[in-house]
Amino acid sequence: MSAVLSAEAVQEQLLRAPFHRWLGLSVERVDADGIALLAQAGPDWLNSDGGATVHGGLVSSLLDVAADWALLSVGLAPAPTIDHQVHYLRPVGLGEIRVTGRVLKPGRTVTVAEAEIVSGGKVAAVSRGTYLSVTAAAS
Amino acid sequence: MSAVLSAEAVQEQLLRAPFHRWLGLSVERVDADGIALLAQAGPDWLNSDGGATVHGGLVSSLLDVAADWALLSVGLAPAPTIDHQVHYLRPVGLGEIRVTGRVLKPGRTVTVAEAEIVSGGKVAAVSRGTYLSVTAAAS
Amino acid sequence: MSAVLSAEAVQEQLLRAPFHRWLGLSVERVDADGIALLAQAGPDWLNSDGGATVHGGLVSSLLDVAADWALLSVGLAPAPTIDHQVHYLRPVGLGEIRVTGRVLKPGRTVTVAEAEIVSGGKVAAVSRGTYLSVTAAAS
Amino acid sequence: MSAVLSAEAVQEQLLRAPFHRWLGLSVERVDADGIALLAQAGPDWLNSDGGATVHGGLVSSLLDVAADWALLSVGLAPAPTIDHQVHYLRPVGLGEIRVTGRVLKPGRTVTVAEAEIVSGGKVAAVSRGTYLSVTAAAS
Repeated sequence: MSAVLSAEAVQEQLLRAPFHRWLGLSVERVDADGIALLAQAGPDWLNSDGGATVHGGLVSSLLDVAADWALLSVGLAPAPTIDHQVHYLRPVGLGEIRVTGRVLKPGRTVTVAEAEIVSGGKVAAVSRGTYLSVTAAAS
Repeated sequence: MSAVLSAEAVQEQLLRAPFHRWLGLSVERVDADGIALLAQAGPDWLNSDGGATVHGGLVSSLLDVAADWALLSVGLAPAPTIDHQVHYLRPVGLGEIRVTGRVLKPGRTVTVAEAEIVSGGKVAAVSRGTYLSVTAAAS
Repeated sequence: MSAVLSAEAVQEQLLRAPFHRWLGLSVERVDADGIALLAQAGPDWLNSDGGATVHGGLVSSLLDVAADWALLSVGLAPAPTIDHQVHYLRPVGLGEIRVTGRVLKPGRTVTVAEAEIVSGGKVAAVSRGTYLSVTAAAS
Repeated sequence: MSAVLSAEAVQEQLLRAPFHRWLGLSVERVDADGIALLAQAGPDWLNSDGGATVHGGLVSSLLDVAADWALLSVGLAPAPTIDHQVHYLRPVGLGEIRVTGRVLKPGRTVTVAEAEIVSGGKVAAVSRGTYLSVTAAAS
């Protein structure tokens, strides 16, 4: 368990991925409990013309990123996802989406983490995944 | 089991979703065995600046769409995903990506389907999910 | 949401399954928040001769039963499991095992529930699954 | 990839686990393609008195064992399950149950494997899981 990076430093690192920039991600909070990210869902995110619901693939993408980057909260680097399981509970709408991630069990070789999107006060989607354990570089 | 729609008709329906247009999807094949979709991975899909690997969230999105739209092969409509589990086996690169989906077990209330991305002759990612069973409209 | 049955009534119903009797299950608590079950792990449960760790298949069985029977807490009947995903975090030892289940999202056709085993003050295994929604009979 | 052990040698090793003996497991086949196990489902396996369906927890146990022991087919040792996802498609009845497992992707740190139970000519249950990669001892 090392000192956790600042939200600014994590965001700078996060946005080195073109797809993370497309998702409009920013880091709201990162600490020993996990991470909270904000995304901006625009018209390209919709799952139907004239609808108002974000496509499940993007919901899943946000959950995976949050679970993965929560590894920073235990001194591990965000690392390749080995597997990821999502349950979709309620529709997620356009606009700002908040997704939180936390580590369930850090391990020497793999780490289990989970994520959640709460929308309108209710849990809209949850996930759990297994990630490779890689020690975070001093960077 | 109804007659399966033509690839053109399915593609027209598929592209009514803004996110599917963003993914550059087209229908290569749809028949009683399942569905094959093609996607065009561009620079926004990358998981790192200067890298060549597609972000896992987009790999997962393609798998979910293919499994979901495979429901057409058994006379069911593409329907909300209840849950979806992905295993990432090898990196997926930029350019054309082919993803196939098939139904494992159609049911009265839910249907289990799975999908696969083969890249460079090797399986790069697999998934399985549970989908709501909704009879396909005559449309 | 109907009145929740008493622990005694649920236990009587639970033990109509031969495998649940083999697991030595009893109902510790059942209320609107979910269910807590106790199991008695004996020598047949071990995953190696001379070892002290319960086999993962039995850990998974307990989690599935707890998630499934948590459906009673929202007025639904325990019902066929559609799918179930387990993460194993730490070994579970012999003796009394406590497993808790709760409903994450009750639905008209399917219900998502999850379960957890805490051993020695630490989470040893977690799961999430999708279950058919069947209204609980007056019985 | 080392030489694969004989079915007899694998069975001797498999039955060192008390729970595997309780399941009545035997090794039908083990080769470079994976493993096939036979189990004997008796009355304790039922999910209801007077019924004829095997409890899902035991179906899941068989799938996990088959996926795990398939690691031998690629020169890896059966190893702790990290996570395991099951879809239940059709009921499994009493008597002899055949479960097959195969490795989807062996890796340096983790290996992805899958398993399947076919009953009455139809796929009754499928699973996929992530296992720790441990080199098989000469033993």
